[in-house]
Amino acid sequence: MKQRLSLNQMTVDQWGVRDAAAACKRHGVEWIALWRHKVAEIGVSEAAAIVKGEGLRVSSLCRGGMFPAATAEERALRIQDNKLAIDEAVELGAGVLCLVCGAAPDRDVQGARRMIEDGIAAVVPYARERGVRLGIEPLHPMFCSDRSAICSLRQANELAERLNVGVVIDVYHVWWDPDLYPQIERAGKRILGFHVNDWVAPPVDHLKGRVMMGDGVIEIKRMREAVDAAGFTGPIEVEIFNQAMWDSPGDEVMAKVVERFALTV
Amino acid sequence: MKQRLSLNQMTVDQWGVRDAAAACKRHGVEWIALWRHKVAEIGVSEAAAIVKGEGLRVSSLCRGGMFPAATAEERALRIQDNKLAIDEAVELGAGVLCLVCGAAPDRDVQGARRMIEDGIAAVVPYARERGVRLGIEPLHPMFCSDRSAICSLRQANELAERLNVGVVIDVYHVWWDPDLYPQIERAGKRILGFHVNDWVAPPVDHLKGRVMMGDGVIEIKRMREAVDAAGFTGPIEVEIFNQAMWDSPGDEVMAKVVERFALTV
Repeated sequence: MKQRLSLNQMTVDQWGVRDAAAACKRHGVEWIALWRHKVAEIGVSEAAAIVKGEGLRVSSLCRGGMFPAATAEERALRIQDNKLAIDEAVELGAGVLCLVCGAAPDRDVQGARRMIEDGIAAVVPYARERGVRLGIEPLHPMFCSDRSAICSLRQANELAERLNVGVVIDVYHVWWDPDLYPQIERAGKRILGFHVNDWVAPPVDHLKGRVMMGDGVIEIKRMREAVDAAGFTGPIEVEIFNQAMWDSPGDEVMAKVVERFALTV
Repeated sequence: MKQRLSLNQMTVDQWGVRDAAAACKRHGVEWIALWRHKVAEIGVSEAAAIVKGEGLRVSSLCRGGMFPAATAEERALRIQDNKLAIDEAVELGAGVLCLVCGAAPDRDVQGARRMIEDGIAAVVPYARERGVRLGIEPLHPMFCSDRSAICSLRQANELAERLNVGVVIDVYHVWWDPDLYPQIERAGKRILGFHVNDWVAPPVDHLKGRVMMGDGVIEIKRMREAVDAAGFTGPIEVEIFNQAMWDSPGDEVMAKVVERFALTV
């Protein structure tokens, strides 16, 4: 399994692209998932050269999305930004752009969902021409008002089917769903990414409450087997937003990631 | 609408049954929802006499449920406790027992769902004989590992249809759901309760993060109209778990509840 391990660089937010890539090499991790704001610190060309220099492959670029906005002008800017993200993905060698779709600018969550569908539809041709696949990542419902009005895998699947794009499945966001396993099967070959971490209650923080695999309640291995059975054979990203981990030495985090990935995924 | 306002007494956790009931009278609130641990402080007979003395009706007793447990013995005790709750509901004149169904004692969330179904099935005849209706309340998915493995109205509806019981809808727990309005319509006459409050992100606390109606993003009036259209004509409980409100004078909270109920529900 270790050849499928990908370090999502937000797991080691204490580092930039250069340190994260070097750490992957040191710890025998062959894949990395990059974040745009980290890439921007050094520039896309430099980031691309670094990951190539370390012999890494890029599992995804995080993130596109954030389509809803209060005005048509702002929504057009968001679409432009997604096209820019697609260009960056091409240059970085990332075949997948992960979409965190955005939340309503007001109380109209259904309106936000229409803006999301319109926004993705507007970038699909651009992505297709450039060979970048778009993966809709449903977020946990507790992020519905601030990060994503796409709250379940069923909803992501329905949208992905209408737009002919993919989905990204993060165990933290979907583990609770009574409809999970049928929806994983339904997603099938549309699955473009699988993210692992774990859930504890009460979450220590709204955003940064994810914990190391094995420290929570999620049946990670069962979900990984279901995702595999659905036809996904790609890299598996370890993506953990956790302040305590960010405050500790990155190499300790990396060692734990490798150890727990082997035990729990 | 004010005649439909019910004070769920956890909104004024600073008070016991006696103070909460007296405050309802003072503020022109005709309904109250009681919690078992509050009732236990003075005894069921005394609580029943107080609410009757203030001329209040009891919209529901909170809460039954919590069916999953690690051992068969413990699960049997939970069922016994639910029967006791039904007896208390009868004595208090509460026609509805609200069920917070409980979480898995381990990582097996599907196993917990089976325990919930078995547990409710075991108390249904007892409730029916005594004229108490059982309302399955789906909780927000962020409570899946510590309070309820019933995480969506669809799931609650499916369970309620199989067991021929009711559902309780709390805006906080279900507002995010892309499937919400079809499931409200599906619930129809099974709707035994409707709870209002509001959502802000990030939640100030995992459990105590609910806010006053109007202070968050939930389309409360739209949901109330949908619930009405589905056939629910009963009392609407204001149920807000919020530490800041519990730390402020109860009469200020009551005044705000009445004011905001009129404006937002």
